[in-house]
Amino acid sequence: RERLRVFIDSPVFQRAVIAVIALNGLSLGLETSHELADRYATAFLVIDRAILAVFVVEIILRIAVHGKAFFRDPWNWFDLVIVGMALVPASESVSILRLFRFLRVLRLISVVPGMRRVVSALFAALPGLASAVVLLLLSLYTASVIGEQLFHEVAPRYFGDLGRSLFTMFTVLTVEGWPEVAEDVMTKEPLAWIFFATFIVITAFFVLNLLIGVIVSAMEA
Amino acid sequence: RERLRVFIDSPVFQRAVIAVIALNGLSLGLETSHELADRYATAFLVIDRAILAVFVVEIILRIAVHGKAFFRDPWNWFDLVIVGMALVPASESVSILRLFRFLRVLRLISVVPGMRRVVSALFAALPGLASAVVLLLLSLYTASVIGEQLFHEVAPRYFGDLGRSLFTMFTVLTVEGWPEVAEDVMTKEPLAWIFFATFIVITAFFVLNLLIGVIVSAMEA
Amino acid sequence: RERLRVFIDSPVFQRAVIAVIALNGLSLGLETSHELADRYATAFLVIDRAILAVFVVEIILRIAVHGKAFFRDPWNWFDLVIVGMALVPASESVSILRLFRFLRVLRLISVVPGMRRVVSALFAALPGLASAVVLLLLSLYTASVIGEQLFHEVAPRYFGDLGRSLFTMFTVLTVEGWPEVAEDVMTKEPLAWIFFATFIVITAFFVLNLLIGVIVSAMEA
Amino acid sequence: RERLRVFIDSPVFQRAVIAVIALNGLSLGLETSHELADRYATAFLVIDRAILAVFVVEIILRIAVHGKAFFRDPWNWFDLVIVGMALVPASESVSILRLFRFLRVLRLISVVPGMRRVVSALFAALPGLASAVVLLLLSLYTASVIGEQLFHEVAPRYFGDLGRSLFTMFTVLTVEGWPEVAEDVMTKEPLAWIFFATFIVITAFFVLNLLIGVIVSAMEA
Ligand code: NA
Ligand code: NA
Repeated sequence: RERLRVFIDSPVFQRAVIAVIALNGLSLGLETSHELADRYATAFLVIDRAILAVFVVEIILRIAVHGKAFFRDPWNWFDLVIVGMALVPASESVSILRLFRFLRVLRLISVVPGMRRVVSALFAALPGLASAVVLLLLSLYTASVIGEQLFHEVAPRYFGDLGRSLFTMFTVLTVEGWPEVAEDVMTKEPLAWIFFATFIVITAFFVLNLLIGVIVSAMEA
Repeated sequence: RERLRVFIDSPVFQRAVIAVIALNGLSLGLETSHELADRYATAFLVIDRAILAVFVVEIILRIAVHGKAFFRDPWNWFDLVIVGMALVPASESVSILRLFRFLRVLRLISVVPGMRRVVSALFAALPGLASAVVLLLLSLYTASVIGEQLFHEVAPRYFGDLGRSLFTMFTVLTVEGWPEVAEDVMTKEPLAWIFFATFIVITAFFVLNLLIGVIVSAMEA
Repeated sequence: RERLRVFIDSPVFQRAVIAVIALNGLSLGLETSHELADRYATAFLVIDRAILAVFVVEIILRIAVHGKAFFRDPWNWFDLVIVGMALVPASESVSILRLFRFLRVLRLISVVPGMRRVVSALFAALPGLASAVVLLLLSLYTASVIGEQLFHEVAPRYFGDLGRSLFTMFTVLTVEGWPEVAEDVMTKEPLAWIFFATFIVITAFFVLNLLIGVIVSAMEA
Repeated sequence: RERLRVFIDSPVFQRAVIAVIALNGLSLGLETSHELADRYATAFLVIDRAILAVFVVEIILRIAVHGKAFFRDPWNWFDLVIVGMALVPASESVSILRLFRFLRVLRLISVVPGMRRVVSALFAALPGLASAVVLLLLSLYTASVIGEQLFHEVAPRYFGDLGRSLFTMFTVLTVEGWPEVAEDVMTKEPLAWIFFATFIVITAFFVLNLLIGVIVSAMEA
């Protein structure tokens, strides 16, 4: 068992897993060509199953070798969920589960130490990040409710109901195409620029920069 | 009174308040559906008043328990203004006051400690932030006056009067759609690109990044 | 003279100067209304001259009081240039000099200590900032020359000559409308996306973030 | 040899090289004018060869003077590759090699110490930067595969094949024109906003800010 552990934690084994993930990414990419996907349907299925089998074996080996320690590392849970999801029998029929098949490429993050480190910085920032994201969502929601109430008759295309209003305000948050929205509303409500300018300054200039602040201070700590 | 204080500062009480705020957010969201708003008009009114009553009682209890200390925390003032505004009798007729009703969802910031901490970082950065914002406004105003003087005949659509010019330059500050504005002006004033490029470099590249710098250094301090 | 110095460095004097600058900003704003500018032409001229006179007297008083020390502060040079420019006799005929009249509002930066501090952070970052800006210009120039050489026949609208190419690439740097440019070029040069994607990653993702890095580390030092 | 070393490391020599690089940049810029390029074809060729000769001599002198130490500085390798590429005989016929001619202007980075320092900050951040960029590419690839699978029939213009899907998602990453893409897809798949909003939050708000974090912490270290 000790020799197995040394083998599994060795760079050779790691590189082999990286190669399989890369192969997986390549085959998923090729499968998007519907010509190829139709002509070599069985080949793609075999490759997909083979890669899945490799991942399952890899994870079983890791559990065998590291025991309970395996479950203490959140990255292993990440692997477990992504690989495990593909084993759920319904995965071919329920379309949302099929999407998990594509996420297997993201295992590269958990396998390459350098990428793990960078993403871990995001996770270290998670408490602050979560607060900043909730703040963003809260601003978005409040602005969307207000926008719907103020402009739903004036600009039904953008503020007709809460769903549209949320989409429009998220659009404004990314600063994309906001002058058209504002100008449309301002033809009937000339003071609407106050609403849009305030929202952009608060969310795009302040709250989004708060996100940068949270990430930077998590990386420096 | 001591037992009341323990109760009010307990996580249970806090979670109850969070639940009421969430309920408030939900009901405000549902109210944007004008079908629902019309059919259940009295129900929405009752819910709104009930939630308001809860908030008023909550704040009175806090003042009773914490005394003068209540008024020393700026977050309590935030709560006081948002809730108090809804009690102003004219609040149903004057439309601007009605908007305060929607801001009650923002009380989530003052109630959840994690969010309070993140927003406090913004407040800690306030002196520097205020200066950076004034700098931004000053650049915007100066550029708008200059833009109006230089281009009001050439491109009345964008620079016809100071109001339009301010709107256009804020648009350029967010970098959104600026090439169309610049190209329109440049058909008659070929050197106008100097004006736009200078403005973008100074405001979007320098002053907006200064904002990031102020926030980051406030978070690290 | 000592009493004069105390008076000039006092908050009262400072606030008076701020008030005059604000008045200047207001009158410049009102002047953009061509109705008002025509009807009250002499009034505006008198106000402008009066404000200029106040600034000249203010600067003379400061020089009288602080002597050589006045010239050691770069902010005083800023004041000197902005105010001095308005005294150049040709200033009413040569249009470029007239623009300096509008910059007088920016004196607010040099007069309010808080804003001085924030802008000083930009100046402290100046050596690094200058390098980053030159790097940006160099990337822009190189990419524009290459773009012109590769695409001037394919997309003359965007890359017809070096001037247009520079404008287009600055547009791409701000990420504004770049997909239209890329798609236009890609109809004839399908691999052109490599050029645009590389340029965006290098300039918008790396060099512009370098600018943030320079400003942040200057503010923390 | 010692006197030669002093001369080559002197500011005078450095400024001369900077002047030649600037001249190179200027002549490349003028060459984009096809009138000038045709009329003075031989002149441009002579200038180009002369500048190249100067660079070759400069590098040979540096190697002669610094010996093996020359090859230890990565900046010297940068110079070596850029200048050496122009000496490859095929360089006039193979168009991709001709592009290296334009990169000679970038030698300014390796020659001016201030710019070297700023760019070195980017290089110091390289390990983290590489991970963040791979993370960005991985997210882009995964999202493009998923987007192609979900929307290739619904919106063939944007997601017809993997190539288009990659272009579209890079476009969405830069936040440019994403509402049009999303609205096009949403006419048939109303829930598609979840896909776009998730992608923008993860890549544009988180991973791109991670890039800022990596650069800032590399500059402060
Ligand atoms: Na746009
Ligand atoms: Na944009």
